[in-house]
Amino acid sequence: MNTGFALKGNICYAPEAGRLVVRENACVVCEDGVCRGVFDELPGAFSGLEVIDCGDRLILPGLVDLHTHAPQYPYRGTGMDCELMQWLDRYAFPEEARYADAAYAERAYRIFADTLMRSATARAVVFGTIHTASTLILTDCMEQSGLVSYVGKVNMDRNAPPELTEQSAERSAADTRRFIEACAERGYRRTRPILTPRFAPSCTNALMALLGSIRGEYGLPVQSHLSENPGEIELVGRLCPWAAFYGDVYDRFGLFGGEGNAVMAHCVYSTPEEVERIRKNGVWVAHCPASNMNIASGIAPVRRYLQAGLRVGLGTDMAGGQSSSMFRAVTDAIQVSKLYWRYLDQTAKPLTFPEGFYLATKGGGAFFGKAGSFEAGYAFDAVVLDDSVMPCPRRLPVGDRLERAFYLELDRTGITMKFIAGRRIL
Amino acid sequence: MNTGFALKGNICYAPEAGRLVVRENACVVCEDGVCRGVFDELPGAFSGLEVIDCGDRLILPGLVDLHTHAPQYPYRGTGMDCELMQWLDRYAFPEEARYADAAYAERAYRIFADTLMRSATARAVVFGTIHTASTLILTDCMEQSGLVSYVGKVNMDRNAPPELTEQSAERSAADTRRFIEACAERGYRRTRPILTPRFAPSCTNALMALLGSIRGEYGLPVQSHLSENPGEIELVGRLCPWAAFYGDVYDRFGLFGGEGNAVMAHCVYSTPEEVERIRKNGVWVAHCPASNMNIASGIAPVRRYLQAGLRVGLGTDMAGGQSSSMFRAVTDAIQVSKLYWRYLDQTAKPLTFPEGFYLATKGGGAFFGKAGSFEAGYAFDAVVLDDSVMPCPRRLPVGDRLERAFYLELDRTGITMKFIAGRRIL
Repeated sequence: MNTGFALKGNICYAPEAGRLVVRENACVVCEDGVCRGVFDELPGAFSGLEVIDCGDRLILPGLVDLHTHAPQYPYRGTGMDCELMQWLDRYAFPEEARYADAAYAERAYRIFADTLMRSATARAVVFGTIHTASTLILTDCMEQSGLVSYVGKVNMDRNAPPELTEQSAERSAADTRRFIEACAERGYRRTRPILTPRFAPSCTNALMALLGSIRGEYGLPVQSHLSENPGEIELVGRLCPWAAFYGDVYDRFGLFGGEGNAVMAHCVYSTPEEVERIRKNGVWVAHCPASNMNIASGIAPVRRYLQAGLRVGLGTDMAGGQSSSMFRAVTDAIQVSKLYWRYLDQTAKPLTFPEGFYLATKGGGAFFGKAGSFEAGYAFDAVVLDDSVMPCPRRLPVGDRLERAFYLELDRTGITMKFIAGRRIL
Repeated sequence: MNTGFALKGNICYAPEAGRLVVRENACVVCEDGVCRGVFDELPGAFSGLEVIDCGDRLILPGLVDLHTHAPQYPYRGTGMDCELMQWLDRYAFPEEARYADAAYAERAYRIFADTLMRSATARAVVFGTIHTASTLILTDCMEQSGLVSYVGKVNMDRNAPPELTEQSAERSAADTRRFIEACAERGYRRTRPILTPRFAPSCTNALMALLGSIRGEYGLPVQSHLSENPGEIELVGRLCPWAAFYGDVYDRFGLFGGEGNAVMAHCVYSTPEEVERIRKNGVWVAHCPASNMNIASGIAPVRRYLQAGLRVGLGTDMAGGQSSSMFRAVTDAIQVSKLYWRYLDQTAKPLTFPEGFYLATKGGGAFFGKAGSFEAGYAFDAVVLDDSVMPCPRRLPVGDRLERAFYLELDRTGITMKFIAGRRIL
């Protein structure tokens, strides 16, 4: 049991978009897995707590990856010379078909979960494959990793290769129930199922309707893809001519926020109507800048989404994105926002580092409730970074050191401790 | 003395843009610092040579960084929330002013050179500062690093803060001669001076004319910046109304290729006339994609430049670019070319991985003569990579492993050997 402790060092967090708080040589307090706040001197109420002195190191909230595909991890960083639909056919689908083999899933998911465990990511929303048995291996691996996660068995009953097409909408729904119930039976403490229609092109109306019922029954959140690529959007228009816009497909079946959490990856080409529905329904946008570059989708207008009051977080989207690093996702998001400003809309100010940091912590963390900040009452997710591995001829301000740690992906080599909901993972 | 040896393993190189040669379990031979070719079985003529067995590792040519700023290394990855001219005033110039202090230069340049030594970069074209003494510390450090490099003392006699403005064109030229002669006296084997007018806005006509004379006298190459940012280009138009276009400023003073090598960083906004002059004069374009994102310059139309027959290589442009990794420069170049295709010109096909690999090896290597390939007669620059540190549940083809190594920046942690002109560095 956690009786409580404090971490002492250079504490950095973003309580709102664009406001980075840096408290040098301060303490952040954890009791029962929950943050009690940041203090220059430990108040009397906490005077009995163990203080873990992190010296001059940086202490930040654990990061939140709102969108990633566990089964695609093995081929990340390969096959980058094609666009979305071609990339699915040549790389994503053949790899995912391998997960019919539980032994392969076991090998692959252990590597995936181990990578996330060693990363700065504390919480993640994860796609599996259509295979129930393999996706339960994934949930086991994620539970063991110590991360808090939502994991989805994927639904696909059309427009996929035969070995990845579920036999019927009913069979897909029955397997989904089996997955949800198996998760409950296993008594996970940190791992929860999430409904995962892959995307509109791969789910029939019948399947969508069944998933809508399951959602009502179990009260589960939903993850899917939305308005990622012009070719995909055109396909959705042909498949679902009755929908007002792409996102309306999900909404018609009760899979687009409203009563429960939903996260939609990408939203590169959302129309004003779609943006308004996203806002109204409280859907989270998972912005995945690396993936959007790699498969040549484009740049999501994140500044516009923030101005419109949408809920936005960041995702690595492995293996559309090549990297599991959320530090990289932050700097990628900033970089592409500058190109968006330069070429597409000079009234859409580029994202700043404090804004990118917010999106990757509290912004996406809100999908999990109170997570991604060191404000009192938030889950105590923390990462301690040693940046002394990056030699410098002079002393930099702590804020600059934090920015540099992100731009140079210090999460690859510089993590010295990691806590999730108060539990030490590294 | 090098008597010769062979490296055995998975040999990868690009003899032309877009053609990646992968020779599994083959030998690449070095004699007297020069590559003698790649062979499946060692020919009789080389039968006495030592064979260094690299097992299943990847063996590739050392990479070539055509543009970087040594003095900016300390603040890389910080100060990223501004545009070029503001970034120069707030970050670049204050840092460069510190190099009036030789002790600071000594500390900083040792770190810079050590970073390059440990990287996959074999050759580099490097900016120093206006300070002759400090830039000679840099040349010493670069010589000790084992890399082959061109290093420039920067010239600036206007439009810089007082502490970075040379007192007169004559004084700047005299210091440049002093720098060139000191390099000759030190008898470097790998380090050569290069003329380095910072960019047109910071050099008077009088200074440019003097540099043109020095060039004629010593036969030196030139490095500078060109058409990076709209604000900068407008400034050049105001300062040099007599020039037909930005690059014409350099050309009027004999500093734009023609008789000798010249490399111009960026070329994001080169006009058709400028592109034609670049081609005619045989000027190298150093494409620096990370920098062009970070300081919101834009995306250079590299596909167009390749189609026009320009000489193109890649640069990290630290600290406009945050990273010293040429692997990262390759994947950044590919990523931004996809956004260029998507948003600016759908007839400009995105760069492929084999093209990016070529640019970072033989493309930029040509600035140094025969470098950046394993064809016979090329300088023997080689990097051996161990990618077993990236676990995978199945065996990937060697070509995919190479692509993955670049996308995941394996140059940070996976280099097991490095040779430059036949000399072992790591």
